[in-house]
Amino acid sequence: MLEYINDPNDIKQIQPEDYKLLAKDIRRFLLRNVSRTGGHLASNLGIVELTMALHLVLDFPKDQLIFDVGHQSYVHKILTGRKNGFENLRQFHGMSGFPKRKESDCDAFHSGHSSMSLSAALGMVTARDINHTDETIVAVIGDGALSGGMAYEALNNMARLRKEKKNLIIILNDNKMSIAENVGGMSAYLNKVRTRKEYVEFKGNVEQSLLRIPGIGKELTTILKKSKDSIKQLFVPGMYFEDMGITYIGPIDGHNVPLMVDTLNRAKQLDEPIIIHVVTKKGKGYRPAEQNPAKFHGISPFSLKTGEVLKKSDNPSNTAVFSDTLIKEAKKDKKIVAVTAAMPDGTGLGKFKNHFPDRFFDVGIAEQHAVTFCAGMASRGLKPVFAVYSTFLQRGFDQILHDVAIGNYPVIFGLDRSGLVGADGETHQGIFDIPYLSIIPNVTVMAPINGRELSEMLKHTLHHAKGPTAIKYSRGEASSLYEDQFEELHYGKGQILKEGKEAVIIAVGNIFEEADKAEKILKEEGYEIGLVNPRYIKPFDQELIMKLSQTYDKIMIAEEGVLNGGFGMMVNEFLSEHDYKGEVRCLGIDDQFVEHGSVSELRRMLKIDGESIADSIRQWMKE
Amino acid sequence: MLEYINDPNDIKQIQPEDYKLLAKDIRRFLLRNVSRTGGHLASNLGIVELTMALHLVLDFPKDQLIFDVGHQSYVHKILTGRKNGFENLRQFHGMSGFPKRKESDCDAFHSGHSSMSLSAALGMVTARDINHTDETIVAVIGDGALSGGMAYEALNNMARLRKEKKNLIIILNDNKMSIAENVGGMSAYLNKVRTRKEYVEFKGNVEQSLLRIPGIGKELTTILKKSKDSIKQLFVPGMYFEDMGITYIGPIDGHNVPLMVDTLNRAKQLDEPIIIHVVTKKGKGYRPAEQNPAKFHGISPFSLKTGEVLKKSDNPSNTAVFSDTLIKEAKKDKKIVAVTAAMPDGTGLGKFKNHFPDRFFDVGIAEQHAVTFCAGMASRGLKPVFAVYSTFLQRGFDQILHDVAIGNYPVIFGLDRSGLVGADGETHQGIFDIPYLSIIPNVTVMAPINGRELSEMLKHTLHHAKGPTAIKYSRGEASSLYEDQFEELHYGKGQILKEGKEAVIIAVGNIFEEADKAEKILKEEGYEIGLVNPRYIKPFDQELIMKLSQTYDKIMIAEEGVLNGGFGMMVNEFLSEHDYKGEVRCLGIDDQFVEHGSVSELRRMLKIDGESIADSIRQWMKE
Repeated sequence: MLEYINDPNDIKQIQPEDYKLLAKDIRRFLLRNVSRTGGHLASNLGIVELTMALHLVLDFPKDQLIFDVGHQSYVHKILTGRKNGFENLRQFHGMSGFPKRKESDCDAFHSGHSSMSLSAALGMVTARDINHTDETIVAVIGDGALSGGMAYEALNNMARLRKEKKNLIIILNDNKMSIAENVGGMSAYLNKVRTRKEYVEFKGNVEQSLLRIPGIGKELTTILKKSKDSIKQLFVPGMYFEDMGITYIGPIDGHNVPLMVDTLNRAKQLDEPIIIHVVTKKGKGYRPAEQNPAKFHGISPFSLKTGEVLKKSDNPSNTAVFSDTLIKEAKKDKKIVAVTAAMPDGTGLGKFKNHFPDRFFDVGIAEQHAVTFCAGMASRGLKPVFAVYSTFLQRGFDQILHDVAIGNYPVIFGLDRSGLVGADGETHQGIFDIPYLSIIPNVTVMAPINGRELSEMLKHTLHHAKGPTAIKYSRGEASSLYEDQFEELHYGKGQILKEGKEAVIIAVGNIFEEADKAEKILKEEGYEIGLVNPRYIKPFDQELIMKLSQTYDKIMIAEEGVLNGGFGMMVNEFLSEHDYKGEVRCLGIDDQFVEHGSVSELRRMLKIDGESIADSIRQWMKE
Repeated sequence: MLEYINDPNDIKQIQPEDYKLLAKDIRRFLLRNVSRTGGHLASNLGIVELTMALHLVLDFPKDQLIFDVGHQSYVHKILTGRKNGFENLRQFHGMSGFPKRKESDCDAFHSGHSSMSLSAALGMVTARDINHTDETIVAVIGDGALSGGMAYEALNNMARLRKEKKNLIIILNDNKMSIAENVGGMSAYLNKVRTRKEYVEFKGNVEQSLLRIPGIGKELTTILKKSKDSIKQLFVPGMYFEDMGITYIGPIDGHNVPLMVDTLNRAKQLDEPIIIHVVTKKGKGYRPAEQNPAKFHGISPFSLKTGEVLKKSDNPSNTAVFSDTLIKEAKKDKKIVAVTAAMPDGTGLGKFKNHFPDRFFDVGIAEQHAVTFCAGMASRGLKPVFAVYSTFLQRGFDQILHDVAIGNYPVIFGLDRSGLVGADGETHQGIFDIPYLSIIPNVTVMAPINGRELSEMLKHTLHHAKGPTAIKYSRGEASSLYEDQFEELHYGKGQILKEGKEAVIIAVGNIFEEADKAEKILKEEGYEIGLVNPRYIKPFDQELIMKLSQTYDKIMIAEEGVLNGGFGMMVNEFLSEHDYKGEVRCLGIDDQFVEHGSVSELRRMLKIDGESIADSIRQWMKE
């Protein structure tokens, strides 16, 4: 059926009897492509029929469809003329794995982070009103994303639409999961709602339904007639949303296209904010994904037959090094507790949970809460470790500053996916953490250059931290570069790994491997370039920098992050204050967002790969 | 009665018949002191009896009492031996207007920003469990703070306490207000609950109560017996919280001490998370504050008799300049909309609301939502202006980066209270905005040096902005310095205001007045110091900086913000890249939080006042 789908709205030509066939074709297409390129699979398999229903009802690009988080937009991309893009999905200069306005005017709003769709949608509704236009606006949000406070802030603000008689449709795509199993009171509530299906039929006309209950209806309605809300509470399962001033419809089967089309068409007619509770199955139609949706949430190329990832690395990842060390230390120290924001697998804390279920906390997609929750625990003597992706900790910026740093509580941030993350692209690059953490007083920031150092940094911090400390490490395998030259850690102290002559490179964390390549390239050419591992980004080793300034005329500072407010800038400022007469060059990322692609391609593009660094130094020496 | 209250727990010696007298004394004490020193009044007048009840039940400092936001902690300070501190409340080296652990071990957790208390409290409960201790933990949160998503994230995480049989008491201090009237679905819901007092008596034993309804009870319970939740929904007013897995008690009268003591004692016995809904009256006991609680939220010294502020300024504030300009432009351009996060008065947008009620949005204490809501509006062609205090926009950091800047939407941030704010102290200083905004690609940051420039900057941005733009301005009066030398704005261009010889000062925004003083002091001594207004912090005027580097051997850069990642660092980096051979000095705030005090005292302490700047330059010239 997919050959008929080449442009937006083409799906409207498909006959209802063929919907199931189309859904099957889409799933086959997704499986064939994602198994080859890697990408987000389980959520897209789950949302096939829902996306079809939305496309049968909405008019693209006039109507505005906003996907929360956005990794579940593959089916939408297929239905809006982007089938061919899947050949190069998430690859350098290929199609993005997230909605992007630059990619298609059918993508109403870009996304990547969680819980933001309702706010954007409410903004669009407001604009529609002021612009006097009549597009339909729909936000699709998962039950997982509902654990983010931002979504609640938007829900709280939607009540006014009822008074103002304005339509806004929220699809609650309830698959009982964030990436992992969903957590919290809201999740338990939705579960309760889901299992009270017997009430759904009553919701159309509550009082009529009551009257039909033999023997009791009439009297009940008489007694309670002044209290319509209470009657509603009795029979409407989504009272939580009704309490917030939002009309609730559901729960309905998210794999039944005609039912969803009907419901959407009805919802479009209402002059109020509506939440349609749609129950879907993550991974639907592919047994390995149904059985282990977390594994198939975002996955590398895999065998369709076995469901196994094709290229498994033999070396441990930074994530594994971090979590193994944490478990080891937690065995000795009962004060150590671990926190994740809906990422037990991604951060490696799943293993910690198995060892210490009472000292492990998955707070859901709620980084703000996670940070201050840690502050609360640290204020009472615990040693909380919040393992979190660099990009997602941005949500907790104010909490780190206000709740953790002002109190100077020894909360440890395990900053995973720091630096370039690759295929997820601009919304996910961990390239802002050095500045956003370094500007906060009392915060210590560290970056290891290899697995051993990562492990030792965590140990050292668990034993000695006197205030908030972030240890940033990159996605993927732990490096073993210079592990044999490991020396004991001392607070605020860096390490000279290679003495040189013409210049020295101070290379932060994961970019050290590129500096090392540059050094080797230049060595072949007869140059002697020094290599320094700063270890501590803040406070950095001033003594060491002074020493380098006395030895070298050329100091290069390399980091895989934005230059503004970065390590290079801080060191350069220090050198300038001390009237360094040599030259300083800072390598890093100019003031720009960085698209998707492999990390090595992106490094080349940004000229922070080994060869570019070598070129840059060679050129410099000629100047 | 207050003379008997000198140490924590002294209140327990007071006889119940004297509670009213004590409350009266506390109110008189508050009025006498705050009318003299200024401070937060209305919320403290409202919380007198509630704080008394908490102190009658809790044991300090063993038990942990966490105040959300914290400006309502004055009564708590009175009851914990800090009466004398009110002489120097909020003054330099005097007592803080917020809870501070450094100040007293009865202050369980510092605060200042909103909606964070529940997360901190949950952290403490978790620590209690792991530490095997038995303190009672209570968080006090206003209904206004409940509009912040962070509070919801914590509520969502509290459900587990029921399963784990752990006690945590939340006091919902419901006075129907943020600083202004409260907004949103949650507020409407609480209002509904408040007015359904007739159901309160039922909540103890729902089924028993039902049976007592003549004629109907028995049959009803028979029919519904399988559905306890539904019965509960019918009669428990706080079903919203029950749905979230938190036991709801209330609403109860927040000015009835014995009732609250009883309720608290009962709540302490329960092995679950409990929310006690307490209804209080903001400003209680002082008629002017009851009638206009927003005015008396935070107030300067005022006449007790008339309720009028003593020293009124004749000059317009930056806030007024901003809002007046906005209104003027909005009359001409229907695309302009204004957003505040619960601060219509503080940001001056109240006036905008009067003119354009349909283009004004108070989203409650919900900065995250506010930012992305603006992005949504801007994505559909509107020109949203979010006026917000610099310190509170920290909550929207990720949203600015992810939702606004990646999409490059022309959202305008009116950054009020940027720089030192004075009496509110470390939790409120707006000293991080230059770095946290400048590290985000696509963001433009501007700072005016006088009122006219502020107005023109807003106009210019409203007409020409191509991406996100922040205009930062300080608390207090608009300066008129150099207004007569105003020249038309050009994107990214600064202005030389005075040519000099020995050195030049580039002074950002509000600190320009201190640079100007320094210039005048040094002029008296025969020096000629140049003065430059950079206007644009990002992108800054590279051409201008190059020109200065060719003219001056000494360049001083002054800003009222942290040095890390600040304007000085960015300019210095640029100069270093271009091999500037002269010297650069950056004045600003070292890596530290800044306590409370008057702005002039704080500037002196930080050596960024006119005399210190002059000293610094004089010294420099002698080196």
